[in-house]
Order: sequence, then structure tokens, then C-alpha cells
Amino acid sequence: MKMNKVAVIGVGLTKFGELWDQSFSDLFVEAGANAIVDAGIDGKDIDAIYLGNMSGGRFIEQEHMASLISDQAGLNPAPATRIEAACASGGLAVRQGVIAVASGMHDVVVVGGVEKMTDITSERVTQTLITAADQEWEAFLGMTFPGVYALIARRHMHEFGTTREQLAAVSVKNHANAKDNPHAQFRFDVTVEQVLGSTMVADPLTLLDCSPITDGAACIVLASPEKAKEFTDSPVYITGAGQATSTIALHDRERITVSDATINAAKAAYKMAGKGPEDIDVAEVHDCFTIAELLAIEGLGFCEIGEGGPFTEEGSTARGGKISVNTSGGLKAKGHPVGATGVAQVVEVVLQLRGEAGKRQVDADVGLTHNVGGSGGTAAVHILEK
Amino acid sequence: MKMNKVAVIGVGLTKFGELWDQSFSDLFVEAGANAIVDAGIDGKDIDAIYLGNMSGGRFIEQEHMASLISDQAGLNPAPATRIEAACASGGLAVRQGVIAVASGMHDVVVVGGVEKMTDITSERVTQTLITAADQEWEAFLGMTFPGVYALIARRHMHEFGTTREQLAAVSVKNHANAKDNPHAQFRFDVTVEQVLGSTMVADPLTLLDCSPITDGAACIVLASPEKAKEFTDSPVYITGAGQATSTIALHDRERITVSDATINAAKAAYKMAGKGPEDIDVAEVHDCFTIAELLAIEGLGFCEIGEGGPFTEEGSTARGGKISVNTSGGLKAKGHPVGATGVAQVVEVVLQLRGEAGKRQVDADVGLTHNVGGSGGTAAVHILEK
Repeated sequence: MKMNKVAVIGVGLTKFGELWDQSFSDLFVEAGANAIVDAGIDGKDIDAIYLGNMSGGRFIEQEHMASLISDQAGLNPAPATRIEAACASGGLAVRQGVIAVASGMHDVVVVGGVEKMTDITSERVTQTLITAADQEWEAFLGMTFPGVYALIARRHMHEFGTTREQLAAVSVKNHANAKDNPHAQFRFDVTVEQVLGSTMVADPLTLLDCSPITDGAACIVLASPEKAKEFTDSPVYITGAGQATSTIALHDRERITVSDATINAAKAAYKMAGKGPEDIDVAEVHDCFTIAELLAIEGLGFCEIGEGGPFTEEGSTARGGKISVNTSGGLKAKGHPVGATGVAQVVEVVLQLRGEAGKRQVDADVGLTHNVGGSGGTAAVHILEK
Repeated sequence: MKMNKVAVIGVGLTKFGELWDQSFSDLFVEAGANAIVDAGIDGKDIDAIYLGNMSGGRFIEQEHMASLISDQAGLNPAPATRIEAACASGGLAVRQGVIAVASGMHDVVVVGGVEKMTDITSERVTQTLITAADQEWEAFLGMTFPGVYALIARRHMHEFGTTREQLAAVSVKNHANAKDNPHAQFRFDVTVEQVLGSTMVADPLTLLDCSPITDGAACIVLASPEKAKEFTDSPVYITGAGQATSTIALHDRERITVSDATINAAKAAYKMAGKGPEDIDVAEVHDCFTIAELLAIEGLGFCEIGEGGPFTEEGSTARGGKISVNTSGGLKAKGHPVGATGVAQVVEVVLQLRGEAGKRQVDADVGLTHNVGGSGGTAAVHILEK
């Protein structure tokens, strides 16, 4: 397909963490205000809003959130649309925003992502997150998400010789990056020994292999290239947008150690942008568990299938390595407010491409974001360029 | 804005009702198969799927539904995206499908809507439906949706002299239409006396003023005009697509007897299509309660504000009246599987424009659909033409 490129002219985030004194709409409004100030636009310039949110209905007993946040941000009557695809809700919201601008339907679109996860018990959070899996064939039988990814990790270790230490290396790297990110939930280093020695969650994954439960919001402002010129001399462009679906339930997949949705979404995005994995300098990928980052960098073509463990352990994905992966700290250490994550990934890559990433800045002209729903039932990949 | 028109080349429905022996994915697959057969296309022709669903998370403990139904319908790896805006989820999914085709991003898109509402108790259904209102300021205080619309009805009666009998006339008309619709949940006549004498739900609204709890799915196939020619000589075109947001909570509105979201969405759709209310021959409007149909026909410009009661009572919205409204039976009598409703409305208008509406056929060249989220926090309006 042919599509016009779309400019990102503003980005905004809240702090990620356990934010007990902020409601979900407080979070959206804060991130949105930051993005609007960054873009230098006014509320009246905004033609439409897309909101990524996984489960307002279960986390805070609120559906119809896009309308509510639009109202609370003073943006009525602009169309406001919620997009849901579990933990890929944000990435899909970005894609719908891109399509809305590229189609000529709207000139300036705000894409937000928000999740308020800490208002309910962690047991109910676990029950809610597993609604991203196949309820009838996985959740009802007792499966949890750490359990799903533990099965994948164990099989990856069996097939490719991936080691426990290599998984831990993902966590160590991402914590080191988060330390330099003022918005991150966990701003401290961990060692391989600490990861291995932390509480077992689902063998072989320990607590420090898992992303946390997080409140937070992220927001970006998209515009047509012509419109963008009114507001900035140096927009970042989204030049590729790919999305793919794969089987949700693990038992229905031909192979569980490879993410077909990631591969297909990446193929579409690379083709649209006329780029390949060798062109990518910086990437935010979906590391909800350490094993997920290995599947991501393999599926995106940064290394061969099965080689993610050694590739990470040797430092190729560290800041300033062959390709800088999850400079923000990733889901693991920046935090993972599920519906916000896909939008927050774009925020980080835009900051990197603008040279505004502070202490975690790397040298980058082309970036990529990769957002996954469930254990790979959905994937969204975007390519961004200066 | 300028947008290419988009063709509807196939439509499909399930029966609407209490369908205890069918799961939500059974429903989607049945409606989808009907639409695909109607379009004469094959699964491999489908580039993307949009799914309208209000609350899979609460009704059946399943989020990430678009990916799941895409898998179960054999459509992987095509992008599958769920759209949510309470009872307007289906209408917004249609609009996203229209944008996706008009943008050139996809050539053939399936838009489905599905809701499986009868797997939980009716008390929990009520608790779930009210998540479409403002949870913090309406639901937590004990408000239910019949209560919200009862307040609007009482005020409409006070301001405009609307009578209880005029409200009942909406129900009588829509039941008469549903009798001729083989997919409808309630295929029987009711009288004004029966509506007035049925169980009080929220004064002044009785049971027969309220749409029911329904399982069901609807599906349409959209294509670019060029692509449509490969499959049909007589497509129906969507020539206008409008969406607007308004305040969710009643107490924040300047006036509660007028739906600003409806007015703004209609304005956008009419402008895009180059049409006005006087051009519309047949319309499916959002009659979740009888009072809602009055707000709809007033906001859409079929009659003056406040005149919906007499306009309905005199038969102007009956089949073959000035404008035929809810020939399908509407939400009231066809049934209201919330996420499916906005898509099912398009199905009915397409059948009418094609001359395939059987016993309920009216003379029509231009049709309109109108789908509302909550008590008017969101509205979507589409214009369809032969």
C-alpha cells in the first residue's frame, strides 16, 4: 500500500509508577498537556483523539474512556476513539492515528495511552491481564501471563541453548537504562545474581524477569507534513506502520519460540518505510518479560532466530551497541501501564531522534517501536525517521 | 476534509436474542461468514478487520477479542483492531473501517460488531452498562442507564410537553417493524396501553420503553470503489462519516434534552456527503430507550427540537412516512447487543437501499445510521447512497 508519511510534532509522558493520588483522567490530562505544550499547539487545533487502553472496564470499572478523557481535557466535540488490543492497545492507537492523518480525514490528531492498574488488588490485576489470552482455553485452566512466558522461555532454552544468565542480561541492561530516565518506575541497577536470586514467579522467570504493575500515561501529537510545518522545523516522521495478528493460544501455534505477529508486522513496516533491520539505530521493544525481548529482537531481524541470548549478553543491544534497545528502560524497568506502553515507546524514540534523551542519548537517525498484545496475538511496529 | 467514498459490498447478521448455545466467537464467525458469502469474496481477500465491542472484559472476561476472532475466523495475519465507545462501539468501528479504506491503507476491510451479554446475571449486566457513564460521578452514586434516560425523558416532557403516549408510540412503531424482521429479538406487536401498563423501570420509562439485553453479531465488508467493481455491479456507498464527542455526565451538560454529539456528528456527515436531513429516506437511529429516538430524530434534523413526540405520534417516522425510522425494529425490538448495534444499523440500511429488505422494504435512495455511546458522550453518523 501507499501512504503519506505522518509527522510527530509533540510528545508527553507522566511519571510511571504506583500513582495512588492520580486518577486515570488526571494521568491522561497531564501527559496530554505535556504533549500539547511540546507541540506548541492549542486545544482547538486538535481534530481527533485516539486512546489506547486495555481494560478500563476491569481496572477501574470505566468503559467509554475516550469520550470521558476528551471531555476532561476540554477537547469536545472532537471525535475520540478508544482502541484495545491488550498490551498492544497503545501501538494500535498510534497506527489508527497515523491512518487518520494519512487519509486526509484529520490534520492534527492526539494519540494517548493510559492505564490505571493499582486501584485493585494484584490478584485481580493478574486475572485482568490474563483476559489478553484465550479465556476459554488458557485462563479458565489457571494460566497466568508469567506462566505463558515461562513456557516460551523454557522452550527457547531447550531449542536454542539460551541460558538463565542471558535472560537476566535483558533485565540488567534495561534497569541500567531506566536509571537515566526520570519517568521510569525503577531507577536502580540490578545484577545478574540479583535477577537469578529474586523470588521465583513462574519457573524459569523470577520477579526481576517480569515487568511491574504500573500507572501511567503517554501522549503524542500527529500532523500531516504540511500542517507540521506550522508548528516545528524539525518533526520526526512515522514512515512505516505495520500490524499483524497471530494465534492467541499457545497450544494452537506451530511454534511458540518465534513471534509470527512480530515478523509480519515488521515486514509490513519495513516495506512501507523502505528500510530494513540493518537501518535501525534505536528501538523500543516489548519486554514484558525478559524472554519477550529476545523474541522481539529476533523477530525484528536484529539478530538471527535463537541468537537473542548471546546477542544481548555480548552487549549488542546496550546503549551504543550495534543497536540500542529499550534506552527508556523498557517495560521491565520504565514500567508497563499496559495501554500506555505503545505510545510511550514512540515518545522515547522521538526524544532519541531529536537528540533530547538526556543522559541516555544515543546516536540515531532511524528508530523503531514494537508493541505486543498478549503472548503475541497482536503486534504493531512503527518506523520513525528524522 | 476530503475523503474518497467507500463501498459496502457485503453484509451479514446473526439472529439477535438470548443465544445461550453460541459463544461470542461463534456469533462473529456466523455473521462474518454471511457477509463474506454476500460479498462473494474469499478470506484471503481481506486486508484488515475492525471489531466493535463494548465490554468483553466484563461480559465474558475476554479482552483482546479482535485478535481472537480473527484467528477463529481463519484471517491471520491480517491486522485486527477492537474499537470501544460503549454502545457506539460498532458505529466507530465502521468509521475506522471507512478511514482505513479511504486512506489507501487497505483495499478490503471487514467490520464486525459483537456482544455476548447473557452469560452473566442481569444485575451484573446493569453494572457493566453503566460503565459507559461517568463512573466516579454517576455510577458510584447509584445511577443506572434507565435512570439516566428517565431524567432526560422527564425533562423533555417538562420542556416540550412531550407525552407518555408519544414515548410509547416509538415502541409501538418499532415492534411493528421488528415483526417483519427475521433477525429481530421481539417479533410481536405492542400497543400504547401495553407500553404504559408494563412494569415500571425508571419513572416515566416502563419495561417496553427499554431495549433488551441481547446476544448478537453483525458484519459488513468495505472496499474501495475500484476494488468493489471486481465483486459487485451494485454496491452501496458510504459517502459521509461523522463522529463527535460530548460530555458524558448529565450534570455537566448545559442542556440534557438535546444531544450535542448527535448534532455535531450529523453536521460532519451531512457536510461530507453533501446532503441534508431532507434527503434521507430511511434511517436507523439509536433508540436504546424510547426517549432516545426522539432526541435522535430531533438532533438529526428530521423534525424541530422538541417536536419528536408529535412527529412520531402522527406517523411521520413509520414505514412509508416522511422518513422511515428504524425499519429493522431498532434497538428496542430488534435487540441491542451493544457492540454490534452500530454495524447492524448499516446492514439494515444497505438491505433497504438494495431493495432486499423483504416485507419491511421502503422506497429509499439515501439512508442514514446513527449510533450513540452512553447517554450521548459519543455519536457516530453515516450517510449511505446507492
